[in-house]
Amino acid sequence: MKIGVVGLGLIGGSIFKKLRTLGKYEVVGISREDDYTALRGCDIVFVCTPMSVTLEILDRLESFVDKETIVTDVCSLKGFVSKKSYKYHFIPSHPMAGTENSGWESSFPELFEGANWVITPLNDSINDEQKELETLIEELGANIVITTPEEHDKAAALISHMPLVIAQALCENIKDNQLAQTLASSGFRDTTRLALSNTQMAGDMVKLNRENIEIALDALAGSLKSLLEDDYPDKAEKIKALRKKLFK
Amino acid sequence: MKIGVVGLGLIGGSIFKKLRTLGKYEVVGISREDDYTALRGCDIVFVCTPMSVTLEILDRLESFVDKETIVTDVCSLKGFVSKKSYKYHFIPSHPMAGTENSGWESSFPELFEGANWVITPLNDSINDEQKELETLIEELGANIVITTPEEHDKAAALISHMPLVIAQALCENIKDNQLAQTLASSGFRDTTRLALSNTQMAGDMVKLNRENIEIALDALAGSLKSLLEDDYPDKAEKIKALRKKLFK
Repeated sequence: MKIGVVGLGLIGGSIFKKLRTLGKYEVVGISREDDYTALRGCDIVFVCTPMSVTLEILDRLESFVDKETIVTDVCSLKGFVSKKSYKYHFIPSHPMAGTENSGWESSFPELFEGANWVITPLNDSINDEQKELETLIEELGANIVITTPEEHDKAAALISHMPLVIAQALCENIKDNQLAQTLASSGFRDTTRLALSNTQMAGDMVKLNRENIEIALDALAGSLKSLLEDDYPDKAEKIKALRKKLFK
Repeated sequence: MKIGVVGLGLIGGSIFKKLRTLGKYEVVGISREDDYTALRGCDIVFVCTPMSVTLEILDRLESFVDKETIVTDVCSLKGFVSKKSYKYHFIPSHPMAGTENSGWESSFPELFEGANWVITPLNDSINDEQKELETLIEELGANIVITTPEEHDKAAALISHMPLVIAQALCENIKDNQLAQTLASSGFRDTTRLALSNTQMAGDMVKLNRENIEIALDALAGSLKSLLEDDYPDKAEKIKALRKKLFK
């Protein structure tokens, strides 16, 4: 079986390295500027490019892969890539793995070990292609989670994109307070770690998922108001129990 | 020199253990329900009790320590303890150290190593008592930061109390979203770690520093709006640089 990877950053590089480690596949890795003829004959292709260029690359692939080829992307948003169909079998996906670092030099084969890898199939019926992709993803070490693009993007706003912009706003808010900067310690450090994220990717997410982020921020403002209104200690205790359950 | 510690939780316990380790002081540690006569003759007393009972204990101490005794508290807020003077030398302070755990069993002598320890003197002039307290705090391993109660409480809202209630609201917001709970990973985990804080202490802080927290939340809403308005990638890059500088 021949597998292609387009885009050899943190995610693409880690897929490439892990597939090579498995030793049972012919693996071709190219950067997005390379010659796509190397992808001819691939059974499965992972498109691991920045969100802003992924649609263009999915179009371009139509000239290079067969109609039997399975293609997946790894974009952090699934709605915008799920709007059209292609000549090949396109199955959008999103590996929920990453580090603060980016690029080939930061990639490593164990990146997906134990991580969730979301699949948002375009068809309701599970077909052979989806099963084949799932098997390969499991070989990469990840757990499959199946949902819709809409539910995925809503959840991503709640657990990832909103926390990111909040981390940034928390930092921005102490920009002119020298004492706060001096005193900031581990609590502030952890709460704002997401502000170190790749800003290109963050920019794409804020642009493409703005509506869900704004809905989430409105809901957060409501939660804050009700939290501070009354029964704070009780509510805090319940939230603490939920947070403990989330990350055992 | 005789040193007393009232309240043997995480902070008081760690002060007690570190002072014992130093081996050069007579150290007396009592819980807040114990007999305070044990504190007679102390040169310095650390009051390490929950904020909600600290004022009462500062009052009670007047019957047990001398007018030469130096007393400090370790409350996370400094405004509310700075409103009256006592028969002894009272110098409010706040060690900026802690872990997710609380109680004597979690305390350890190295807790203050490299941490900031804020002092908010009631008098402008630096006197011998303040110098003596500073020397002892430095022996505990901490760095002295001197400011006013007002500036302290404002900074604490920005770097600690607001991040805490936001962490709680972020968790509350995914309470009914099973997919979000399944997909939440390291980014969400770090951003919401403060929701694991001691809820009694959190309750005191929210009650006693509500005004500063609300001002900070308003400012945050403004930062969020302007961040999402335009030039997001540029702003994100500047914030990332600030965040990197804060925690080298």
